[in-house]
Amino acid sequence: MAEHPGAVFLSSAAVPSPEFPRRVPVPPQRPFAEALGDNLKETFFPDDPLRQFRNARGWRRRTVASLAYLFPVLNWAPSYDLSLFRSDLVAGITIASLAIPQGISYAKLANLPPVMGLYSSFVPPLVYAMMGSSKDLAVGTVAVASLLIASMLGKEVSPAQDPTLYTHLAFTATFFAGVFQASLGLLRLGFIVDFLSHATIVGFMGGAATVVCLQQLKAMLGLPHFTTATDLVSVLHSVFSQTHQWRWESIVLGSCFLFFLLLTRCLSKKGPKFFWISAAAPLLSVILGSLLVYLTHAENHGVQVIGYLKKGINPPSLSDLVFTGPHTAVALKTGIVTGIIALAEGTAVGRSFAMFKNYHIDGNKEMVAFGAMNVVGSLTSCYLTTGPFSRSAVNYNAGCQTAVSNVVMAAAVMVTLLFLTPLFHYTPLVILSAIIVAAMVGLINYEAAIHLWQVDKVDFCVCMAAYFGVVFGSVEIGLVLAVVISLLRVLLFVARPRTTSLGNLPNSSTYRRMDQYSMAQGVPGVLILRVDAPMYFANASYLRERISRWIDEEEEKLKCNGETSLHYVILDLGAVGSIDTGGIELLEELKKNLERRELQLVLANPGSEVMRKLEKAKLLQSIGQQWIFLTVAEAVAACNFMLHECKPSSNNIAANITSTAAADQQGLHNDNIV
Amino acid sequence: MAEHPGAVFLSSAAVPSPEFPRRVPVPPQRPFAEALGDNLKETFFPDDPLRQFRNARGWRRRTVASLAYLFPVLNWAPSYDLSLFRSDLVAGITIASLAIPQGISYAKLANLPPVMGLYSSFVPPLVYAMMGSSKDLAVGTVAVASLLIASMLGKEVSPAQDPTLYTHLAFTATFFAGVFQASLGLLRLGFIVDFLSHATIVGFMGGAATVVCLQQLKAMLGLPHFTTATDLVSVLHSVFSQTHQWRWESIVLGSCFLFFLLLTRCLSKKGPKFFWISAAAPLLSVILGSLLVYLTHAENHGVQVIGYLKKGINPPSLSDLVFTGPHTAVALKTGIVTGIIALAEGTAVGRSFAMFKNYHIDGNKEMVAFGAMNVVGSLTSCYLTTGPFSRSAVNYNAGCQTAVSNVVMAAAVMVTLLFLTPLFHYTPLVILSAIIVAAMVGLINYEAAIHLWQVDKVDFCVCMAAYFGVVFGSVEIGLVLAVVISLLRVLLFVARPRTTSLGNLPNSSTYRRMDQYSMAQGVPGVLILRVDAPMYFANASYLRERISRWIDEEEEKLKCNGETSLHYVILDLGAVGSIDTGGIELLEELKKNLERRELQLVLANPGSEVMRKLEKAKLLQSIGQQWIFLTVAEAVAACNFMLHECKPSSNNIAANITSTAAADQQGLHNDNIV
Repeated sequence: MAEHPGAVFLSSAAVPSPEFPRRVPVPPQRPFAEALGDNLKETFFPDDPLRQFRNARGWRRRTVASLAYLFPVLNWAPSYDLSLFRSDLVAGITIASLAIPQGISYAKLANLPPVMGLYSSFVPPLVYAMMGSSKDLAVGTVAVASLLIASMLGKEVSPAQDPTLYTHLAFTATFFAGVFQASLGLLRLGFIVDFLSHATIVGFMGGAATVVCLQQLKAMLGLPHFTTATDLVSVLHSVFSQTHQWRWESIVLGSCFLFFLLLTRCLSKKGPKFFWISAAAPLLSVILGSLLVYLTHAENHGVQVIGYLKKGINPPSLSDLVFTGPHTAVALKTGIVTGIIALAEGTAVGRSFAMFKNYHIDGNKEMVAFGAMNVVGSLTSCYLTTGPFSRSAVNYNAGCQTAVSNVVMAAAVMVTLLFLTPLFHYTPLVILSAIIVAAMVGLINYEAAIHLWQVDKVDFCVCMAAYFGVVFGSVEIGLVLAVVISLLRVLLFVARPRTTSLGNLPNSSTYRRMDQYSMAQGVPGVLILRVDAPMYFANASYLRERISRWIDEEEEKLKCNGETSLHYVILDLGAVGSIDTGGIELLEELKKNLERRELQLVLANPGSEVMRKLEKAKLLQSIGQQWIFLTVAEAVAACNFMLHECKPSSNNIAANITSTAAADQQGLHNDNIV
Repeated sequence: MAEHPGAVFLSSAAVPSPEFPRRVPVPPQRPFAEALGDNLKETFFPDDPLRQFRNARGWRRRTVASLAYLFPVLNWAPSYDLSLFRSDLVAGITIASLAIPQGISYAKLANLPPVMGLYSSFVPPLVYAMMGSSKDLAVGTVAVASLLIASMLGKEVSPAQDPTLYTHLAFTATFFAGVFQASLGLLRLGFIVDFLSHATIVGFMGGAATVVCLQQLKAMLGLPHFTTATDLVSVLHSVFSQTHQWRWESIVLGSCFLFFLLLTRCLSKKGPKFFWISAAAPLLSVILGSLLVYLTHAENHGVQVIGYLKKGINPPSLSDLVFTGPHTAVALKTGIVTGIIALAEGTAVGRSFAMFKNYHIDGNKEMVAFGAMNVVGSLTSCYLTTGPFSRSAVNYNAGCQTAVSNVVMAAAVMVTLLFLTPLFHYTPLVILSAIIVAAMVGLINYEAAIHLWQVDKVDFCVCMAAYFGVVFGSVEIGLVLAVVISLLRVLLFVARPRTTSLGNLPNSSTYRRMDQYSMAQGVPGVLILRVDAPMYFANASYLRERISRWIDEEEEKLKCNGETSLHYVILDLGAVGSIDTGGIELLEELKKNLERRELQLVLANPGSEVMRKLEKAKLLQSIGQQWIFLTVAEAVAACNFMLHECKPSSNNIAANITSTAAADQQGLHNDNIV
């Protein structure tokens, strides 16, 4: 084996530094516990949430810091003033005018008593105002989670036949969702939500919106019976098998109000001044519709109305939770699925607005807040709530400053619950359906899907899988499909890493991919390969095949052109972020394989993890540290030196120096080296 | 926005090249179908198996090439000669002497008639000799797959109560295993086997060997009844609850022969000359044991013997396959699990010996060969076969040259089946158990486990999970556990990518990780970050948090030291091999975020996929191509130029040139820039 080929640099007078070649250091051995601790910290506490506690001295300050950590309200309440309150008051009343009709509509969608939608806009916003860290999030129920509750619980218990049990299961599912959300936050497992990619959510939300709109055909057409399935085929079959039951009164009323609502939506897009119109439109529709029914007595002519709504604020529901019996499992499953969907929407919404206004949101803390809000909600007759996008956007546009806007909304809902519920007696269901459809149309984000197609085809496939899975299968099928495709993509990236051959950019010491930089030129006698992923068991045999194919192709090419044969294979490990024993074995085999073909394996720019494992596996000695270089340029310089100066005997490195290698080293490498 | 800051280089006289700055090119748009085709080709045909067909001209040559592709025997048979045959003859007889006792033993382990072990060493080796591409693989049944068949099928059908159905299910499972193996090969899905890492296999094989040894306690102790479970707790309970049934005759006989077999194993490790001893020992034990029983009539004193073995070669079993009825599902499941385990062992063994002898094995082709061998086997009364390590090692050591050694072995087994089966009548079962235990001891590879602990702790965990899962749970639990941990590691690598800050190595233009290279020095006013994984949805929010923490920490540090504040954040994308829309969004957000903090985002060395997606997402324009550099050194040079020369107005780039930036560019960058 040659001595360190880089030794040729040592006495070069032309080189400004006396330190060439620069060895790649092997990181010092660290105690196992310390390394494990650091890894765990980086995995679960990447945001270093305990920084503030370390800074606080004395138990008193630490207690305050802990409380302020759990209840961010303590941070901003002391500096709260009247001007802030004025903004929050306006915003709060605006979102209340949206929350009341939406709450009733979504509760109907979940097959729950309409008043539960109002309950859910009273207690949870108060909890969030204390514990949440977003200033713009408006808390409330959402259509997708409502639909999920209806379809998942509806399979187990019929809401028509056993409404009490069904309602109790909904509370239980909400409880489990809250516990699940809070545990994810407390166990710092918030990253699980990250596995729902944006593409998944676009497709999933679009599909869910389509399904929700389809469900509204029941009320819009005034049908007395309807399928409990949510897929397109069942719904269309159900609709067209009972054409004789269609009621023109419902259809006319629904179409008019839907047109009105969609019109205000379009108007509001014209400018931020008009957003008031779309924010107030639902409540206006409810008032107009109720008045119309009350005056024309349309409830006797096929227009279904809400009917009696119980007065009074949320009754306690602790004793309603179902922890035993055959139905708990389905409540648990519903809780976990709806909990994670609600989290995904809530955290995404919170983060988006935080970015607009440039403040920071701690994802795990938000999850604890959502969890607490749902646990408390489940004890006070509420069902699953989160931070819906539409309501939060209205909140933001109305100029909210802090979470006090949620408190104002809760107060407005409380007043409604205490005094105004009789006013909703004559509200026609078809208006609620129109409100839902108008809200859902915005969720079918076809522009985002087109953008996905343009930028990333795989993401587009994920999006479409989620959409069609939800529309033709069920919500769960769509979700599982999209997550599986997303994960497959990650696994495929690792299982099939890109390998590229590098060339020298003229007049520089830079080596870049020859397929990306057309001016990059290969170095005769040397093949420079770069691997773009960690070397893991999952790609070891692929890389073995692929690298040997690179060498075959290169040798074939050289043979055709009658050029110098191949002598060195330089592996640029700059992008190999991690390596496991499978990767180490691959390098071992590669080395043996190359030796048999009389080629020398040279490594360039290995990271510290690679160096540490090479050393532990004793591969460092067997490759020889003299064949491991800091940069590709240095590796090429050494190879060139060996090729041209030491040909007679590779073990004899002359002490006299040519400047080729050294100059190369210094970035003056250019085409004249053959 | 500044003009291209690199423009300063343009008229530098000191610079040898007129081409600075070098733009990072956006790859040209490719038609979707072409890109998709290339990706599919790289994913499924990385070894370019059709190369030989492209070279062959004319339909005749192509037919020959196709046939030779399917039946590699056509490649080597024409040049086969007597000297090769002499080697193969010796090797074939040697492995036959091992195959006969092992075949009977493993068939007993699978609760199948012992003669099926002999059948399975007759037909499949012939098929493999035609279709296989390994020269060293010796085909036969293996202990682990036998145990798996016993435990998976045994749950459904008792081999004692309904031996016919049980045997038919074993044929059916073998058939499904063969079809599954061949399909994996034909569909080019061989990489699925790669997801069983070496660590998984070490742990799994060790666990299976332990379980198989435990099962031998039945015969060793001469117990009439035994548990059907395979886990340690059940077996020990079963053994110690019937201590009164232990037979000293069995124990003494078994211990003596086990000692003898282990002794020959140890001897054979002394040198390659001694391997004959360990190869012949099992057959010798069988002969000695049978003689002993025949002479002492020990079969009447608690020593169980094989008993009557049917004479004649394999009967056809096509009509025995069970494709309908309630048991087909379990046969399918057993077939898939045993098929993949057998593939993993067979391909690993084939590859290892191919590497020793420096020839190439096509993994997918091997799978087709294994599949064909098992399908044909299932039609001729054989059960699952593969290339066991022990038998192949004996084959290799005995000097086999081609797959003809398998043919010789098959011929020897055929002779045994036709004429010698009555000789096995008095063979005691305890000898078979001793043979199995002696073979299994070698599979418990504790040295490999220690190596895993030293090199990679995660791989060690995977290995231990597989081992303890198999020993305390079941074979399937161990396997699933190990695969899940392995996949979690891959996902975690992507979900929690390492970010590191880079510094300049003194007297060079090289930038390296400051935690790896202690001499690397930060550049004042500039934070250089490197991301070591693809930017995917799964890590976008982590990276968002982590990068903002890097910036916070850097600014805090600068504030403490009273140094220049931060102005530029350079993101080294050299190791970002891939990006999806989640990653693009992250960059978009990062840019906005930095702008709000009055920092400039600078990208260095993006790959072509990143550039293409940046362009499609219109992010390239919004970042500005003048802030995208080919190397970190160029980016730093431009930042330094902007910081020091253009401070009054960043929009005004002076035309006069200082040499700082240009020299920096040329690798003369050193500490004197502040």
